[in-house]
Amino acid sequence: MKLEGLSIIGAARGERGGQSFGAVNPATGDELPVKFYRASAQEIERAAQLSAQAFAAFSQSSGAQRAALMKRIAELLEANATTIVERANLETALPAARLQGELARTCFQLRFYGEAAATGLAVGARIDHADPRRKPQPKPDVRSRMRPLGPVVVFGASNFPLAYSVAGGDTASALAAGCTVMVKAHPAHPGTSEIVGALIQHAAREHGAPDGVFSLLFDDGHEVGAALVKHPLVKAVGFTGSRRGGRALMDLAAARPEPIPVFAEMSSINPVFILPGALPRKSEELAAGLHASITLGVGQFCTNPGLVLAERGGAAEAFVQKLANLMTATPPGTMLTAAICSAYYNGIEKFSQTAGVRRVTDVKTEMQKNLAGAALFVTDGNTFLKNRHLMDEVFGPATLVVQCDTHEQMLAAARQLEGQLTATVHGTPADLAGCRDLLAILETKAGRLVFNGFPTGVEVCHAMTHGGPYPATADGRSTSVGTRAIERFLRPVSYQNSPDAALPDELKEPNPLGTWRLVDGKWAR
Amino acid sequence: MKLEGLSIIGAARGERGGQSFGAVNPATGDELPVKFYRASAQEIERAAQLSAQAFAAFSQSSGAQRAALMKRIAELLEANATTIVERANLETALPAARLQGELARTCFQLRFYGEAAATGLAVGARIDHADPRRKPQPKPDVRSRMRPLGPVVVFGASNFPLAYSVAGGDTASALAAGCTVMVKAHPAHPGTSEIVGALIQHAAREHGAPDGVFSLLFDDGHEVGAALVKHPLVKAVGFTGSRRGGRALMDLAAARPEPIPVFAEMSSINPVFILPGALPRKSEELAAGLHASITLGVGQFCTNPGLVLAERGGAAEAFVQKLANLMTATPPGTMLTAAICSAYYNGIEKFSQTAGVRRVTDVKTEMQKNLAGAALFVTDGNTFLKNRHLMDEVFGPATLVVQCDTHEQMLAAARQLEGQLTATVHGTPADLAGCRDLLAILETKAGRLVFNGFPTGVEVCHAMTHGGPYPATADGRSTSVGTRAIERFLRPVSYQNSPDAALPDELKEPNPLGTWRLVDGKWAR
Repeated sequence: MKLEGLSIIGAARGERGGQSFGAVNPATGDELPVKFYRASAQEIERAAQLSAQAFAAFSQSSGAQRAALMKRIAELLEANATTIVERANLETALPAARLQGELARTCFQLRFYGEAAATGLAVGARIDHADPRRKPQPKPDVRSRMRPLGPVVVFGASNFPLAYSVAGGDTASALAAGCTVMVKAHPAHPGTSEIVGALIQHAAREHGAPDGVFSLLFDDGHEVGAALVKHPLVKAVGFTGSRRGGRALMDLAAARPEPIPVFAEMSSINPVFILPGALPRKSEELAAGLHASITLGVGQFCTNPGLVLAERGGAAEAFVQKLANLMTATPPGTMLTAAICSAYYNGIEKFSQTAGVRRVTDVKTEMQKNLAGAALFVTDGNTFLKNRHLMDEVFGPATLVVQCDTHEQMLAAARQLEGQLTATVHGTPADLAGCRDLLAILETKAGRLVFNGFPTGVEVCHAMTHGGPYPATADGRSTSVGTRAIERFLRPVSYQNSPDAALPDELKEPNPLGTWRLVDGKWAR
Repeated sequence: MKLEGLSIIGAARGERGGQSFGAVNPATGDELPVKFYRASAQEIERAAQLSAQAFAAFSQSSGAQRAALMKRIAELLEANATTIVERANLETALPAARLQGELARTCFQLRFYGEAAATGLAVGARIDHADPRRKPQPKPDVRSRMRPLGPVVVFGASNFPLAYSVAGGDTASALAAGCTVMVKAHPAHPGTSEIVGALIQHAAREHGAPDGVFSLLFDDGHEVGAALVKHPLVKAVGFTGSRRGGRALMDLAAARPEPIPVFAEMSSINPVFILPGALPRKSEELAAGLHASITLGVGQFCTNPGLVLAERGGAAEAFVQKLANLMTATPPGTMLTAAICSAYYNGIEKFSQTAGVRRVTDVKTEMQKNLAGAALFVTDGNTFLKNRHLMDEVFGPATLVVQCDTHEQMLAAARQLEGQLTATVHGTPADLAGCRDLLAILETKAGRLVFNGFPTGVEVCHAMTHGGPYPATADGRSTSVGTRAIERFLRPVSYQNSPDAALPDELKEPNPLGTWRLVDGKWAR
């Protein structure tokens, strides 16, 4: 597949012209082949118009039709795995094995969300039968199902060039919902984006999907993204990235004449609480598990554990020493971009310069090659409670261990936390039975509680919540992983006293599609 | 029950002091007994602090406990029906029979939403079992349930002094979710608000609910409401009222350091489409039904049909004439407030002065007594398409009939509509089978499609959607009526690899509460 460096506008390609940018190999700093041209205002307008026109047809497609399209996209990704992984490796420095795993996850998501559309799980059908004899007024027949919002703009994430980028979770859940998608490609992996985008375009054409069901727009600045979010035909936004970037999009969307929802997954330090019973029994295992979780992918996961809280004591000291040894022995890894690497060092500097915070590791750096060393900080409960910036995310392989004086201080630290994607608790059965106070606080802070495990690794399933109160996400009522992610792009529509023939199939009395439905308050199919 | 005119701050009362205001009888313009004191900054702060403290306990209550509290509130409302209806009648001029019906609906809502909490319907439990043998990574056990957001601010609506005010739908759905509630009383019915608020306070005390689970704050301006929406401890807002008021709250909430969702139900003209087959057969019935729906409660319903579209022709002329006769014969009715009455006449004036719009009725007015006459306007499709202000809501007993030249013109009018709460279609079975084009458009415009009926009257059931794309509501993904309304105030939380003993009852493997749960993708209990 030959890269053209041009945006994908429905079934067509953008124009060569205007400003362009190149992709950079973060491991060498060298520019990779091919120039990518910024989408022009006309291209944005054309993509939006096509997306809205395509929505009229695509929103009427059956769940099974959308599942077939998504399955075909997955097949094409798999058939082109070598090309995709090769380019993604050059653009992100993520190892091939990791990228292969991420591609498998991307394809699983496409199929799994497609299945949720095909089986009607995402349709949320509800039926309340009429009661003509009810007094004082007869009860009408009311049925409802979820309907897609309209064209969705998806911002590709830098840290998941496949699973949260062009054909990633936001795109998959929007397509499953019946929405059309315009992706703003992340400038850190434009070539990967183009390969994947062209395969989606190909699958859409093969399946006779309406022209404009998918577009991909290039830009290395903020203009294209802002124009898309402000476009009146756009009805929702999916974003994974920085807190500042996400908030900027939220503000743009809220200021529109017609405000639209932004589902931004932004920042999280994913606190890990180690209860007293856990440490003496498994400090070795804990140190090894945490180290692996902290340094995985050079710490560039949104579920990276940036904060560990344990009660002070002999076992805690030994645990910190073990973790320190592992962190010190970790070779530096190449980060995704120079900007991310530089932000990492700025974050480390702020922690290092905080009175009462001890840097345990010698951080080996090589900024020119975006090489980041692992960093371990240790502090006490009081210092943590007094310095709110110690709750700021340091995106990369860094973590802060807080040695709390008492259980009460640990609870105070938990109460002070901002919204998180995850919170993890390690403890014996007795510890866990006795920490309802902590769990009750964590439930209000995080979207996912992990027990005796580590937060990295987000299972794609029905029960997953990859979301959490602001600033973890823009809207803590949403998740960007799992079949609930589809619901973000849906709204309920009710049909009152409709003749059966005029009802959509999911709501027809004989249930021709075999959909799960809430009938008079009970689930049935 | 003696009115005190003081805010309700948890289990206590506010202070006498600062500015006060009186309630006005809209039928006479006279001020009613008792002064109501604006909540002070300290009272707002105290209510918010109490609400957050109470949330910690109330959010841990079982659904059955919340159902019992809500049932008790309903019982107390019923036991005090005479007092409530008497005061509400004086403050709103709504007839006693209507208020009795509204009270019954209010009590039904409290019990019905409580039941959804008790049976776990609103908990949305999901379980995905582990698969330790899965490759390449073992699959974890992941379970999720919905959790309450936190303290919720509810703005009482003027047009439903019971069912969408202090103990109304927003309060009932927030309590069912496990949220604590602070109500900003509507200044048009402060006495009714105080009576109902005191009964909730009484029920909360009886049930040992935490102090602060409910507060009620008075203000005849915007300061108290704005302070509540901006308060950092507040996590969501429910509002029913004008588009301007709702948008102001949305903007305040979006500009907070931590943005929060506002569920504002704002404006809708509830278009009624009459297809060609319907008119000749039932023009009499249609005219009578529409007239009743337009003039019900002096047109002060959010689902009031303000727009009727029919294809031009003999039957349409006869229909308009019949409707005109009924509208002209309608005696003027007292509106809720002087401000609403004056806005009604301004709206009518704008329509009257639009070239191409014919006012068919002589509107009898008596502004001093807030008496509003019914108004019928007729125009053609072209005039409607060219004058966007003809889509503005005129809150009151007014409607505009648009005579379309063709089906295509009717579709164009449908496409031009803003978001609506409802859209209604009248037609023969053949009409309805042949209007998929129209229904597909209306699905993107409205939250509820009504077939061969009228939009007023919103059934409280599982499948109801009382919501719609902006500006009908702030967030078209929500409803303010039906059990889905509870979901507005909930967010999902997942538990990964939790020992059964540490799980909440709804998620324990043996399902001790008998909750409906999505287990490995299938609903079961």
